[in-house]
Amino acid sequence: LRFELTTLGTGAALPARGRYPTAQLLNVGEELYLIDCGEGTQERLRQAGVNFNRIRRIFISHMHGDHYLGLMGLLSSMHLQGRTRELHLHGPQDLNEVVRLQLRVSETYLRFPLHFEAVRAESGVLLWRDDRVSVHALALRHRLTCAGVLVREHEQLRPLRKDKLFIVPPYRRAGVKAGDDLVLDDGTVVPNSELTEDPPKPRSYAYCSDTAYAPELVPFLEGVDLLYHESTFTEALAARAKETMHSTARQAATIARDARVGTLVLGHFSSRYKSADQMLREALEVFEATVLSDEGATFTVGQRFPGR
Amino acid sequence: LRFELTTLGTGAALPARGRYPTAQLLNVGEELYLIDCGEGTQERLRQAGVNFNRIRRIFISHMHGDHYLGLMGLLSSMHLQGRTRELHLHGPQDLNEVVRLQLRVSETYLRFPLHFEAVRAESGVLLWRDDRVSVHALALRHRLTCAGVLVREHEQLRPLRKDKLFIVPPYRRAGVKAGDDLVLDDGTVVPNSELTEDPPKPRSYAYCSDTAYAPELVPFLEGVDLLYHESTFTEALAARAKETMHSTARQAATIARDARVGTLVLGHFSSRYKSADQMLREALEVFEATVLSDEGATFTVGQRFPGR
Repeated sequence: LRFELTTLGTGAALPARGRYPTAQLLNVGEELYLIDCGEGTQERLRQAGVNFNRIRRIFISHMHGDHYLGLMGLLSSMHLQGRTRELHLHGPQDLNEVVRLQLRVSETYLRFPLHFEAVRAESGVLLWRDDRVSVHALALRHRLTCAGVLVREHEQLRPLRKDKLFIVPPYRRAGVKAGDDLVLDDGTVVPNSELTEDPPKPRSYAYCSDTAYAPELVPFLEGVDLLYHESTFTEALAARAKETMHSTARQAATIARDARVGTLVLGHFSSRYKSADQMLREALEVFEATVLSDEGATFTVGQRFPGR
Repeated sequence: LRFELTTLGTGAALPARGRYPTAQLLNVGEELYLIDCGEGTQERLRQAGVNFNRIRRIFISHMHGDHYLGLMGLLSSMHLQGRTRELHLHGPQDLNEVVRLQLRVSETYLRFPLHFEAVRAESGVLLWRDDRVSVHALALRHRLTCAGVLVREHEQLRPLRKDKLFIVPPYRRAGVKAGDDLVLDDGTVVPNSELTEDPPKPRSYAYCSDTAYAPELVPFLEGVDLLYHESTFTEALAARAKETMHSTARQAATIARDARVGTLVLGHFSSRYKSADQMLREALEVFEATVLSDEGATFTVGQRFPGR
């Protein structure tokens, strides 16, 4: 099952140096989720060859413009392209007001149902669940109420071992796949471990932007395969990070190390930096499996990226 | 005095084929006006090397997203770049509501004064006047209330002929420049035509987008040097143009011909057309001095562009 993150925009509030405002595409078994939607996201999606119609859900973290200003244009393009498939929009209550006002004054009557769901920015709150994944909120520390997301695959059933299939009657298979031992007609107990294999480990992705250093997130991020954490500043500007409620690369790496995540992806780089290399160096001192995001780069969730 | 139009976006509602939504920069003697501001305008401005701080006024024609969705991002970038110089925003009353709501929910307190002036979309209404130009509204025909703009230089004073300077006493010069004849001490009348030269003809630019064919505009556009008129469709889709309240290239050219403008610039091309060449051909059949706009193209107001 495909589980991939594509970073479409990795800049901070002021677009510059070829970086665009925040937007991410998450492919979960060919269901597409969009996470944040800065100005120009529709263009980034076109460049990435994405069919807008495949986007099922959009999660907006907070109401700073670099995280949502591309939404109206994207909705408008979906409408003009004749979308009829419903779209779910998760975000702060204010977002709904902003969207509805603009639809009203532009006299736009969307051809597709747009369902808005207000996000409670509290870590662990369930935002969405289907048969593959659940999405929970993460309470980030920012100047505005801001919710990250944690997307986690469900535990899968235990696959039956092919060489033992013949001893499991069809009507007992569901139970065995769920972990039951098998009791034969003569009373013999065959332990589950002899009948099944371990299923693939459920994979998980966490999105933490924008946020100040927030160690209270660690228990929620424990063992996450892929963590995107904002890294607006280098350590030299730690005071500025604190003041603006952003993180340094080292702080992002500290969260990643303490939560023992698989791979850390840095992003949301301030426009003052020509290159993010210094941030990468500072993060690597704390956490080895760190990589930089880039416009259009794709990361497979569960694949461990090497430190450099 | 510089008087130049740069077309930053020449596409219609759905961005595609390298065309961007509508935005124009008008340089009037180094004062910059922005006319409409579709999504991504700040990026187009950067590509054109424009210092945002030099933009003094923004005119928004109407509330379809492809004409205003880039505004919040541009205001935000001006703010983040430390602008303190006041900015004037002219547009529909709804625009002010949309801007204020988004500033409020994002808790953005602009560092510069933003003055909003509601535009009455009635041809001939004065929107702005300084010592160089006046800007009047043009009532366009569209699904939403929509105002074009007509930017016209003032008549200039008549320059004194250098070889006659010695006979005009300093305290009479203002009168002579304004067109008075000179009465000498002995009662001789020297006609103004012997003392002064004709000043340069005042130049004018008109912006008509979005609009259905609107012949009632012709008297207001009479003799305009440069006319930008939308040309969303070819003649084959005249019915679609009528239905959506847009114009065909031929209709744009008919307005240009009837108003005897200097040059017609076509734009706002539907995304269904790979190239605007067919529209150019159809317009040229009616009006010779027609050119196509292009992303980043600059047109000098008053310079006659040849038909092909």
